[in-house]
Amino acid sequence: MKIGMIGLGKMGYNLVMNLKDHGHDVVAYDVNEESVAKITAEGVDGVSSIEQLVERLEAPRIVWLMVPAGKPVDDVLETLVPRLSAGDIVIEGGNSHYKESLRRHKHLKEKGVYFLDCGTSGGVEGARYGVCTMIGGDPEAWEIVEPLFRDISVEHGYHFAGQPGAGHFLKMVHNGIEYGMMQAIAEGFEVLHKSEFDFDYEKVARVWGHGSVIRSWLMDLTERAFSKDPKLESIKGVMHSSGEGKWTVETALDLQVATPVIAMSLLMRYRSLEEDTFHGKVVAALRNEFGGHAVVKK
Amino acid sequence: MKIGMIGLGKMGYNLVMNLKDHGHDVVAYDVNEESVAKITAEGVDGVSSIEQLVERLEAPRIVWLMVPAGKPVDDVLETLVPRLSAGDIVIEGGNSHYKESLRRHKHLKEKGVYFLDCGTSGGVEGARYGVCTMIGGDPEAWEIVEPLFRDISVEHGYHFAGQPGAGHFLKMVHNGIEYGMMQAIAEGFEVLHKSEFDFDYEKVARVWGHGSVIRSWLMDLTERAFSKDPKLESIKGVMHSSGEGKWTVETALDLQVATPVIAMSLLMRYRSLEEDTFHGKVVAALRNEFGGHAVVKK
Amino acid sequence: MKIGMIGLGKMGYNLVMNLKDHGHDVVAYDVNEESVAKITAEGVDGVSSIEQLVERLEAPRIVWLMVPAGKPVDDVLETLVPRLSAGDIVIEGGNSHYKESLRRHKHLKEKGVYFLDCGTSGGVEGARYGVCTMIGGDPEAWEIVEPLFRDISVEHGYHFAGQPGAGHFLKMVHNGIEYGMMQAIAEGFEVLHKSEFDFDYEKVARVWGHGSVIRSWLMDLTERAFSKDPKLESIKGVMHSSGEGKWTVETALDLQVATPVIAMSLLMRYRSLEEDTFHGKVVAALRNEFGGHAVVKK
Amino acid sequence: MKIGMIGLGKMGYNLVMNLKDHGHDVVAYDVNEESVAKITAEGVDGVSSIEQLVERLEAPRIVWLMVPAGKPVDDVLETLVPRLSAGDIVIEGGNSHYKESLRRHKHLKEKGVYFLDCGTSGGVEGARYGVCTMIGGDPEAWEIVEPLFRDISVEHGYHFAGQPGAGHFLKMVHNGIEYGMMQAIAEGFEVLHKSEFDFDYEKVARVWGHGSVIRSWLMDLTERAFSKDPKLESIKGVMHSSGEGKWTVETALDLQVATPVIAMSLLMRYRSLEEDTFHGKVVAALRNEFGGHAVVKK
Repeated sequence: MKIGMIGLGKMGYNLVMNLKDHGHDVVAYDVNEESVAKITAEGVDGVSSIEQLVERLEAPRIVWLMVPAGKPVDDVLETLVPRLSAGDIVIEGGNSHYKESLRRHKHLKEKGVYFLDCGTSGGVEGARYGVCTMIGGDPEAWEIVEPLFRDISVEHGYHFAGQPGAGHFLKMVHNGIEYGMMQAIAEGFEVLHKSEFDFDYEKVARVWGHGSVIRSWLMDLTERAFSKDPKLESIKGVMHSSGEGKWTVETALDLQVATPVIAMSLLMRYRSLEEDTFHGKVVAALRNEFGGHAVVKK
Repeated sequence: MKIGMIGLGKMGYNLVMNLKDHGHDVVAYDVNEESVAKITAEGVDGVSSIEQLVERLEAPRIVWLMVPAGKPVDDVLETLVPRLSAGDIVIEGGNSHYKESLRRHKHLKEKGVYFLDCGTSGGVEGARYGVCTMIGGDPEAWEIVEPLFRDISVEHGYHFAGQPGAGHFLKMVHNGIEYGMMQAIAEGFEVLHKSEFDFDYEKVARVWGHGSVIRSWLMDLTERAFSKDPKLESIKGVMHSSGEGKWTVETALDLQVATPVIAMSLLMRYRSLEEDTFHGKVVAALRNEFGGHAVVKK
Repeated sequence: MKIGMIGLGKMGYNLVMNLKDHGHDVVAYDVNEESVAKITAEGVDGVSSIEQLVERLEAPRIVWLMVPAGKPVDDVLETLVPRLSAGDIVIEGGNSHYKESLRRHKHLKEKGVYFLDCGTSGGVEGARYGVCTMIGGDPEAWEIVEPLFRDISVEHGYHFAGQPGAGHFLKMVHNGIEYGMMQAIAEGFEVLHKSEFDFDYEKVARVWGHGSVIRSWLMDLTERAFSKDPKLESIKGVMHSSGEGKWTVETALDLQVATPVIAMSLLMRYRSLEEDTFHGKVVAALRNEFGGHAVVKK
Repeated sequence: MKIGMIGLGKMGYNLVMNLKDHGHDVVAYDVNEESVAKITAEGVDGVSSIEQLVERLEAPRIVWLMVPAGKPVDDVLETLVPRLSAGDIVIEGGNSHYKESLRRHKHLKEKGVYFLDCGTSGGVEGARYGVCTMIGGDPEAWEIVEPLFRDISVEHGYHFAGQPGAGHFLKMVHNGIEYGMMQAIAEGFEVLHKSEFDFDYEKVARVWGHGSVIRSWLMDLTERAFSKDPKLESIKGVMHSSGEGKWTVETALDLQVATPVIAMSLLMRYRSLEEDTFHGKVVAALRNEFGGHAVVKK
């Protein structure tokens, strides 16, 4: 099948290679000319503009966007959509908020262009050798592109959820769960770390990753991380976040769902961004006021 | 190798069958005569008392206890230990608190008997076909029994942590992590459930279990649970707990480790044990007092 | 001073009476004619339309809005503002989101009308006998109206924070703190309730309200609530919420501030809205899958 | 009334002065001779041993212990109790765990000596000018000492809860609530601190302390703390804790009561004890493993 890919970052590049491995004919574009040159060297049809990309495809055109969420997606769509025809299909594979996808779906529908929102998981390795995707949008469009997803996914690794926005919604919640799982694993290792025992964390992660109830890819990755740095002494515990965890909590608040574990995972990430806190100062000052307890001076 | 097994519940029974499959010679005992009869019918050497079990073994004897944590373990040890000789080995495979194991290790050491504390994971299936174990205790004893563990475990599925108590400590923390992971998954599905979308939870669990970052045995089990009851309409959301999660939180408090996710997982279990709460009444009454907000009458 | 009041609900009505007690001349309007009639019977100048209200005031007019947050405020402003002149002052005393107040401030400023956002606390009693307010907006307008606030407030009970939106921001955070305090008190009483002791909650609330570190108006109200219903047996623990707690958490997420206590207070309110949960079912089903633990059937 | 006081720290010293102000005749002892000398200079009957203290009192003797919880209490009791007679009364006013008080009550009862467990709140100022106490123990003993409590307490500021251990249980839960309230207030100020507004925290604390729903002694103390250091720039946000908050959470776990707010308050205190965390490192390492997200190097 012929498909256009816009965005050749870590994920997009590997998806193209994955598609190519499965015999698909990819026209690839990125604002970064080096990325285009690099993938052209791999035998992919790299182009230097969105216009060119559209010209190389035949109706119904399939264009996969793998660009950062937010403005970049809208910028690409602004250039792309006027060049598409009714019946063409846009797959948006970034980490977009599902409400953005609902808006875009509606907007493209007015022009007769199909919009599939596609949450993508599995990391960079997954993109290359077996991706995991959750897709929302119109069934007519899905029928056309399903073979692509069958090829590039790990077995059972794609799911068409049948409603616009549902793909990015599933990805958002997936990431919320991911935050909770990661924090749970991390807290466990901190308990080990502060305990009276002297554990080999790599070996602990290995045994927990084999046959236990908590075996998981995240535990395998934990093992891998400790194999490189047994006590993680080279890094700081600063936990950045990229949005979906926050969106999950915000959505939960809107739906009045109690999600304490996902919420606390997120809040601990924020907490990790600073070495000292204002709330800590207030509590310390209060303890001093009522009980004369000593404060730690700066 | 010859080994005695005391306790033929779900876990013990399956461990015996697992040992037997690997050519080990098991002498099996349980207070429940039916269990003994049942396993004898499978060709295992069932006995009717701990005394008899000890007699059938040769020094250095290896006796595996798979009985409920707490008093049952002490009761068995009270009968068993006086009949053992220096150099014999007791493996305690239940969900005991690691401090109990430290106490027992010390007590048996005085009599020259080795005590290995062994945390066991992987559920009933694991016990039967490939268990996951974390073991603490004396290296001399471990050297003798390691071949047993190699045989009955899933690959990479056992770890000798090298200090008395370390096995049960690892199992305790494993379960703490398990609580957090389960609650994270469960919260995610509740967000789906309350959302504007109409998801097929079994299919969602399947795609999340294949190729995603959150793929895990727990996600596979989630898929399995939804395959039996698509909306879990037949059951109530009452979340019981069996101790290790609580111990993990208590230990974290003693070590002054912040474990918000594990703690909240535990607290939500307690919350689930009741339909209404006293704290809810107090808040509702207060809102009524200061703002005249309506309360829900019983 | 002459002032118009739009909105004669619980809060607005009592504020008018409070203003009247302090010699101010109030023109009062509400969509509900009965409220207008009732307050007219108290000797207040009740009017039957916003147009009429504006006509009775002299420039610079001062109009206080005490209507529900959201659309009602915008609806009133739509009718009111075109009838106002440059230099007139609108005080918006409802529980509005501070971003709405920023928008309205900007909008009215274009017409030369001052907009003061005013967070109001202290409950119905406070409105009547000594209110607590936090005000944002332009200092020129504040200078004019400060005497009004001095009269109707409890001592030290008003604060002009000096920037548009700051009043409603302070009120929002005030309510976030309120959620946390209420939940803390409520959790404490639940611990008492489940304990081995047989406490008299009214007396406990009384002693905690007198001389202790946690003495507070909320503790006084707790005493009052228990004086009416010693074990709160007549009500259910359903904890509704009216928005500001949620806004506080959302704002904290936007600012990347860890607010675990305020967040958990909010989530426990959501949790209280249902007797059973979907996340509970998922956890119960999982425990059954891996450990064969019994589930509670519906 | 004549009473012996053992322990002349911040609390004990001020309680003696408070008792003296109300005409009571206090015999005072402390291991620290300087404290005894200092209070003797105030006209109090300071003694140099527990033996001497007992000799100066007449049956039924009333001895108040105001020494640190734990071993110091047991040490004093070991010396004191053999010198007491049936019918004498020991008041233990420290921050002891209620289970210790139950044990001590039982132990003293065997000798016919009454033991009243007395939780003390209100800080150092309270001890001096109007204390708040919660008392457990035998009603016969309470009847004798109630006049003392009436004198030294703020109005409504003492409560006899009627069962051994109940006094210290109430104090424990009081402190749990205190943790939650303090953290709620502190989180609110952190939201202000990170916001787009430029607040004067002292003035905010003042307005919140006058007429608002969250007015409380803790808010008054917050105002006082900000009056000394407007942005708390001189101190670090290290939040120590002295036990009762932890005991409250442990007790809640034993009673299976969900206390998320009190628990999170405690965990944030532990979190504040370190600048970096091991769990943060694990999460950061995992994000790097699956998504190639950059870590912060040390």
